[in-house]
Amino acid sequence: MWNTDKEGFLGPTSSRSQSEKSMAVGILDVLPKEYGYIILTLAAYIFFNVYMQIQVGRARKKYNVLYPTLYATEADTKDYKLFNCIQRGHQNSLENMPIFFLLMVVGGLKHPIICSGLGLGYVVTRFFYFTGYSSGDPNGRLPIGGFNSLALLGLLVVNIWFAVSLVRA
Amino acid sequence: MWNTDKEGFLGPTSSRSQSEKSMAVGILDVLPKEYGYIILTLAAYIFFNVYMQIQVGRARKKYNVLYPTLYATEADTKDYKLFNCIQRGHQNSLENMPIFFLLMVVGGLKHPIICSGLGLGYVVTRFFYFTGYSSGDPNGRLPIGGFNSLALLGLLVVNIWFAVSLVRA
Amino acid sequence: MWNTDKEGFLGPTSSRSQSEKSMAVGILDVLPKEYGYIILTLAAYIFFNVYMQIQVGRARKKYNVLYPTLYATEADTKDYKLFNCIQRGHQNSLENMPIFFLLMVVGGLKHPIICSGLGLGYVVTRFFYFTGYSSGDPNGRLPIGGFNSLALLGLLVVNIWFAVSLVRA
Repeated sequence: MWNTDKEGFLGPTSSRSQSEKSMAVGILDVLPKEYGYIILTLAAYIFFNVYMQIQVGRARKKYNVLYPTLYATEADTKDYKLFNCIQRGHQNSLENMPIFFLLMVVGGLKHPIICSGLGLGYVVTRFFYFTGYSSGDPNGRLPIGGFNSLALLGLLVVNIWFAVSLVRA
Repeated sequence: MWNTDKEGFLGPTSSRSQSEKSMAVGILDVLPKEYGYIILTLAAYIFFNVYMQIQVGRARKKYNVLYPTLYATEADTKDYKLFNCIQRGHQNSLENMPIFFLLMVVGGLKHPIICSGLGLGYVVTRFFYFTGYSSGDPNGRLPIGGFNSLALLGLLVVNIWFAVSLVRA
Repeated sequence: MWNTDKEGFLGPTSSRSQSEKSMAVGILDVLPKEYGYIILTLAAYIFFNVYMQIQVGRARKKYNVLYPTLYATEADTKDYKLFNCIQRGHQNSLENMPIFFLLMVVGGLKHPIICSGLGLGYVVTRFFYFTGYSSGDPNGRLPIGGFNSLALLGLLVVNIWFAVSLVRA
């Protein structure tokens, strides 16, 4: 467990003495290795966000909705409702992103496997939320996409459980 | 301090040897137990966010503002300004959420009690920000709600202080 | 490395015994000292966000766009397009903020210097993104500001690299 590997943080830039260094424990020694799955799940979500950005960008071109317009009006395009559904599907995902990130980063410290699983469920249900919304019918976001709330709720429970076990430690 | 409890991370899935495991320190051993209050405060904010979502949803029904419309116009409802105040109260809270989360998660590592207190202040002042804004008069957000900036500023100071003490360590 | 300094977490409020405390390792002992640069870079971004808020606030006064209006229409001001460019420059920065924060906070645990450098690059390119957008020509955001995506991509690569090395550990 002593930090003797090359990736240890306490390199030459550290002000600690050599004798201390040989016994030091770094953050990589205390993080569960399964925390890597948390990071990979979050990376998957970021790629999914790029996918949504591309879809909105395509819709901008297709319906000629120019920057800086966020939501279109009838004056912009007769398909303004369809365009706004695509835009809103992305925006709603952006609005919930910080909560998802927070619960994964913190809850994953204690329950990395459970949180990675719930996180994967969130990414998949968010995909159906977006594609369902993009159909132009707002109700399309719900059949599978609506379960994203359930994934978030699961993550919230794990985090509260973690908090209580910390305080009681 | 050795990680012999059942919730330790270095279980059978770990590739480290048994002798190493018996001496290993996990993330739960290095986190201050008061970090649990940080997580509980953040959970409280997430519940408050659900409360705001419900209020906006109710206003959507009451004033018949259909998805995907974010902000209403006179064409949607004669109470469009009131609806937009409720919507904007929520949106402004969403916009500042990532900064609040970041400062709590990081600053709480060193000063968990101070940050939990400031965080609780943020949740309370944000409640008054939202309910004040929801009155339909934008100025209603300021009397108590305006102090949310002060709570954020306090958290920012704690984080910078933490950063400086880390670099100087 | 033993946690005997005054800033250690295991003070009188801890339920652990004195003998355990004398050997305990705190979070400050496992964090790389260079993580302070991560926090300072994030603090710089938060100050930059305040700067953008002030610019939008000034534009609200100048063009008389009253709360709760987010984006102006021709009915609000003849300069509605210019106002919307300033507003959109800020909003786009807000939308990408959680991803930036996440990648800095997590990736910085393993590669604090690289991530701080990329983070500084992000702050600078975002400044040009906002000021370029604020010119009133949406294309103004791209010449320098467009490189903010490259900084984010670099941070993403560092995070995935970190994740893989964790899982393989």
